[in-house]
Amino acid sequence: MIVVMQKGATADQIQHMVGRVEALGLKSHVIYGTERTVIAAIGEKREQTKESLESGPGVAEVVPILAPYKVASREVKPEPTIVNTGSLTLGGGRFGVIAGPCSVENEEQIVDVARAVKAAGATGLRCGAFKPRTSPYSFQGHKELGLKMLATARDETGLAIVTEVMSPEDVSLVAKYADVLQIGARNMQNYRLLEAVGNAPAAVLLKRGPCATMDELLLAAEYILNEGNARVILCERGIRTFEAHTRFTLPLASVPYLRHRTHLPIVVDPSHGTGHTYLVPDMAAASVASGADGLIIEVHPTPETAMSDGYQCLNYAQFQATMDVCQRVAAAVGKIWA
Amino acid sequence: MIVVMQKGATADQIQHMVGRVEALGLKSHVIYGTERTVIAAIGEKREQTKESLESGPGVAEVVPILAPYKVASREVKPEPTIVNTGSLTLGGGRFGVIAGPCSVENEEQIVDVARAVKAAGATGLRCGAFKPRTSPYSFQGHKELGLKMLATARDETGLAIVTEVMSPEDVSLVAKYADVLQIGARNMQNYRLLEAVGNAPAAVLLKRGPCATMDELLLAAEYILNEGNARVILCERGIRTFEAHTRFTLPLASVPYLRHRTHLPIVVDPSHGTGHTYLVPDMAAASVASGADGLIIEVHPTPETAMSDGYQCLNYAQFQATMDVCQRVAAAVGKIWA
Amino acid sequence: MIVVMQKGATADQIQHMVGRVEALGLKSHVIYGTERTVIAAIGEKREQTKESLESGPGVAEVVPILAPYKVASREVKPEPTIVNTGSLTLGGGRFGVIAGPCSVENEEQIVDVARAVKAAGATGLRCGAFKPRTSPYSFQGHKELGLKMLATARDETGLAIVTEVMSPEDVSLVAKYADVLQIGARNMQNYRLLEAVGNAPAAVLLKRGPCATMDELLLAAEYILNEGNARVILCERGIRTFEAHTRFTLPLASVPYLRHRTHLPIVVDPSHGTGHTYLVPDMAAASVASGADGLIIEVHPTPETAMSDGYQCLNYAQFQATMDVCQRVAAAVGKIWA
Amino acid sequence: MIVVMQKGATADQIQHMVGRVEALGLKSHVIYGTERTVIAAIGEKREQTKESLESGPGVAEVVPILAPYKVASREVKPEPTIVNTGSLTLGGGRFGVIAGPCSVENEEQIVDVARAVKAAGATGLRCGAFKPRTSPYSFQGHKELGLKMLATARDETGLAIVTEVMSPEDVSLVAKYADVLQIGARNMQNYRLLEAVGNAPAAVLLKRGPCATMDELLLAAEYILNEGNARVILCERGIRTFEAHTRFTLPLASVPYLRHRTHLPIVVDPSHGTGHTYLVPDMAAASVASGADGLIIEVHPTPETAMSDGYQCLNYAQFQATMDVCQRVAAAVGKIWA
Repeated sequence: MIVVMQKGATADQIQHMVGRVEALGLKSHVIYGTERTVIAAIGEKREQTKESLESGPGVAEVVPILAPYKVASREVKPEPTIVNTGSLTLGGGRFGVIAGPCSVENEEQIVDVARAVKAAGATGLRCGAFKPRTSPYSFQGHKELGLKMLATARDETGLAIVTEVMSPEDVSLVAKYADVLQIGARNMQNYRLLEAVGNAPAAVLLKRGPCATMDELLLAAEYILNEGNARVILCERGIRTFEAHTRFTLPLASVPYLRHRTHLPIVVDPSHGTGHTYLVPDMAAASVASGADGLIIEVHPTPETAMSDGYQCLNYAQFQATMDVCQRVAAAVGKIWA
Repeated sequence: MIVVMQKGATADQIQHMVGRVEALGLKSHVIYGTERTVIAAIGEKREQTKESLESGPGVAEVVPILAPYKVASREVKPEPTIVNTGSLTLGGGRFGVIAGPCSVENEEQIVDVARAVKAAGATGLRCGAFKPRTSPYSFQGHKELGLKMLATARDETGLAIVTEVMSPEDVSLVAKYADVLQIGARNMQNYRLLEAVGNAPAAVLLKRGPCATMDELLLAAEYILNEGNARVILCERGIRTFEAHTRFTLPLASVPYLRHRTHLPIVVDPSHGTGHTYLVPDMAAASVASGADGLIIEVHPTPETAMSDGYQCLNYAQFQATMDVCQRVAAAVGKIWA
Repeated sequence: MIVVMQKGATADQIQHMVGRVEALGLKSHVIYGTERTVIAAIGEKREQTKESLESGPGVAEVVPILAPYKVASREVKPEPTIVNTGSLTLGGGRFGVIAGPCSVENEEQIVDVARAVKAAGATGLRCGAFKPRTSPYSFQGHKELGLKMLATARDETGLAIVTEVMSPEDVSLVAKYADVLQIGARNMQNYRLLEAVGNAPAAVLLKRGPCATMDELLLAAEYILNEGNARVILCERGIRTFEAHTRFTLPLASVPYLRHRTHLPIVVDPSHGTGHTYLVPDMAAASVASGADGLIIEVHPTPETAMSDGYQCLNYAQFQATMDVCQRVAAAVGKIWA
Repeated sequence: MIVVMQKGATADQIQHMVGRVEALGLKSHVIYGTERTVIAAIGEKREQTKESLESGPGVAEVVPILAPYKVASREVKPEPTIVNTGSLTLGGGRFGVIAGPCSVENEEQIVDVARAVKAAGATGLRCGAFKPRTSPYSFQGHKELGLKMLATARDETGLAIVTEVMSPEDVSLVAKYADVLQIGARNMQNYRLLEAVGNAPAAVLLKRGPCATMDELLLAAEYILNEGNARVILCERGIRTFEAHTRFTLPLASVPYLRHRTHLPIVVDPSHGTGHTYLVPDMAAASVASGADGLIIEVHPTPETAMSDGYQCLNYAQFQATMDVCQRVAAAVGKIWA
């Protein structure tokens, strides 16, 4: 860490902070600039936060040199993590597409969708049985009954199941049926839940919170990795900005940024990331070109009658056309559609 | 709701949407403008979301007329809700201050802080026993042991206890000790947790998520109210914006905005809302002037050695000075310091 | 427009607003809902703003039905505008790449860059002679001398010149040398400048301001179109958000959004849009896949010694590799590299 | 500056960067940490940007130690600047209120408003003769004719005139009539205009751009100060964020932040900062409590008929009530209403 002192910090204040740095077990190194003094703290560990130094007397700012995450970092594990579970393989040049409706409505529907998206090129099935809804008055999902329908869809098609889990006490139930446990954006910093899925036997798809920084996303992944579950997939699904013409703003530069920082695979959700059906196909293609390891896309046979999220679903024909373009783009950027 | 059709929408599409509106149990009323057609849907209920209409053929946009929350609304309950629990009274012109350290460190400390903040004018004690931390490597709190120390501090000073609960399974434990259950910003949309505190015997302080809209905040309150717990306090604690000179951006216009929309009391957290000790006193005063019903402020005897959040704590002298100004401002705007 | 009255608005207030609507030359149509009354104002013109109705007594909200821009709109001109000037053709399926250094440093350099980028596939040369700089202490450009060097580079390579103009009084000078006048992001709402380039004989590349909405961007274009200059190119170059790991956040969904709303061509600037060299190649490819009509990219022979913006420049080898991928992606999405 | 090298940076890269630092005339000091190496560059000048080092080989990041602005800084001039012009005095504990309509509509109106706001406590008159409008179809102001009406209002009431100038070529004309030249938010980085007002005989009120950082605001002030005009007033008027319930988000923590960084006076605009009449009074009071040196508020005799911005204007009675509260709050925080 670099402790930057205020202009005019006294010798006593500097000495005091040197003592504080050394009390953290770090070596200190004072540099007297022409206008300010800085103290380099050598030996910084990732577990140390800069907080304890920031409120010291005469301190202007504390600049950490190390990223706060460790196990998720490419510095620690340079080779890419490939997450494979059933039909789904993501990372290390392998590309996958997870598609399906927002929520399980009935068994016939989910089997039908699974067949359709598989035929079009999907390698995983997404669908919610537990639904987090902004309003207490909205449909909240079919819960275990829905999970059973998803298992049937897997039996019929072989597609790996990706489905959300919302609470620590539901983890073992959901993990009985799912190949990948999805942590929704609203729960990215629900630490009890992260610990619970860190102990589950399934892979985890961790969605970025809509105002989470990259460090916060990687530290959330660290909570899971830390418990021993190494199969974590990161998901960019859009952030809250001043832009109101899309439901969220989809910042695709996260993809190459994350690829430089972490070995974990990264998928993009252009459905939530835009919130409008007509924007999804182009943003799916752009996501592939940005270097993502996969896509997660909402598909419904008749979006107009969907019990949730119809405004951002593709129908079968739209999904097929999107997959056609995405496969050409994947080939153009050297990805293997797994 | 108003369904706005695209320019060039066909008669068939308009007719189709009229059918969809009526299938929702609403009366439809078509208005043919010079460039576009709109369909007014009369009889809208708050429980209906606009989602199901948005993906209809030829639809440009759906504009809801009613706010999505109900029980939290001033339209439903015009008179202000006053939350009283022990020493703390907030709302309806009564003003309170909840102060204390970020986390319980030991019994001596918390009793000492409780005495100091009470002497300076605080009417409640805030302090965390369960700590949500961005990094899995940071101090996570003393848990039940911490709750017991808080109970001791209440016994010694009479101050009502405000403390965070992070998981549904901890609610009954925390409610045994706390007067007010705090829902942290990261958990504002943890719906299982909201339902759990909605069934608890304590009041609830609900912090706004850093990228939550006002509607989302009020719908989160609605989850709690809906379960039967009417004692909900809203808390503005800052939002994520492009501004990096403060940890969060504190948008005080939320206070008068919320006062016009909801009967629930509103407190402001200038500590998290700015993230820097030197900005807290002025923003505390500004919060009072904005019409807030209370403040929640981090205070620590020696912020430099705090186990968390020292960079945004006031020490005793700073807190005393802040209370002095705030009491004058409260008088200037006609609030009764309860 | 739809005038939404507050719950409890009186008959007098409703009558008053009907009068106000009719005074604007519009037909009014009152709809009495179960909880609120709305007044549809039929015959709305784009020139009318909703402002004058919003402060009426008992009014909750005014919802415009028409977009505020007209000449830029696809509703008015459905077929795409193709901007052709010298070597550069953008729009209607034709794709172009404008590349070059941030600022003209000397004649030898700019001619060298022009040859290199042309060889790699660029169809236009970008370079600044007038430089808007955040700090008054930074290098401000070579001005007319720089323009002459750009003209030499065009003579040597045939590449169309894209260069910024910062002030109305410089427009005729810059237009003597440039094929395309660039309006920088900071000047997107400098209305005197927009009017000036609206009267110039050159095409205009209008950069989106970092916090401009889509409506504001299209209204800025409207200022130019309104003066008679129909050759306007829109440029997405990133917005200000809470994300700090990139200099700006590049929201590629603007590309399909704009394509649905306007006939004008849209280019993307992944250099400013990310602010880091290592993110530019992937975001260039993603921009092509999103459906953009072109790219504008910073290229410098030795970025480390560039007089400005070196941190986001590609060197020749990086640019060549980027063009290779982009050409494959362009083919995959059916664009003709012009 | 601190140059942070990437993990694994080679000895050659470190040596290369030492050479680059020294080529800037700085002394270098290499610190070998346990995981990374950093190079302290001693002797940094404010004029130097970090840009030229950021693209060096093996560089992870460059952290500047000095703020980029100089003349505006409290480090250079610790005592507050008091701007006095005619009836208006701002800074150093003196508080002023600039009030008036968005645009001059006619002479009778502006004289009437001037009398009313003066009676209620205003010490300056704000009003636009040149109006920057988002849409080319909106009313653009009465220009010189409007300026003459403003001069009449000053003759009648003695109030100092604050009015916007939009283009360098208008500066001398506007300065003939105005006491304070206002630079609008859209023009905060219109550098030619900043230079022009830097050479004008009037004081300048510089509005923060809606996505400008504090450094950018202070560097814009630096452009003006640098030309020799020392009478610069900063104005916080709200930023663009995801919040849609207000037109802009008003981040009052700017006030104490700026007071710690700069000696220039700071005023707040709660009218544009909220965009809704009903939020203005509380935010005006909050601005005073935050430590601002003044307010700028839109007032119109009949907001509903205003030619612009009626939705955020106070009428006379609302303004009077707001001034009453603000004067009590100003007394509570120790400001002298000048």
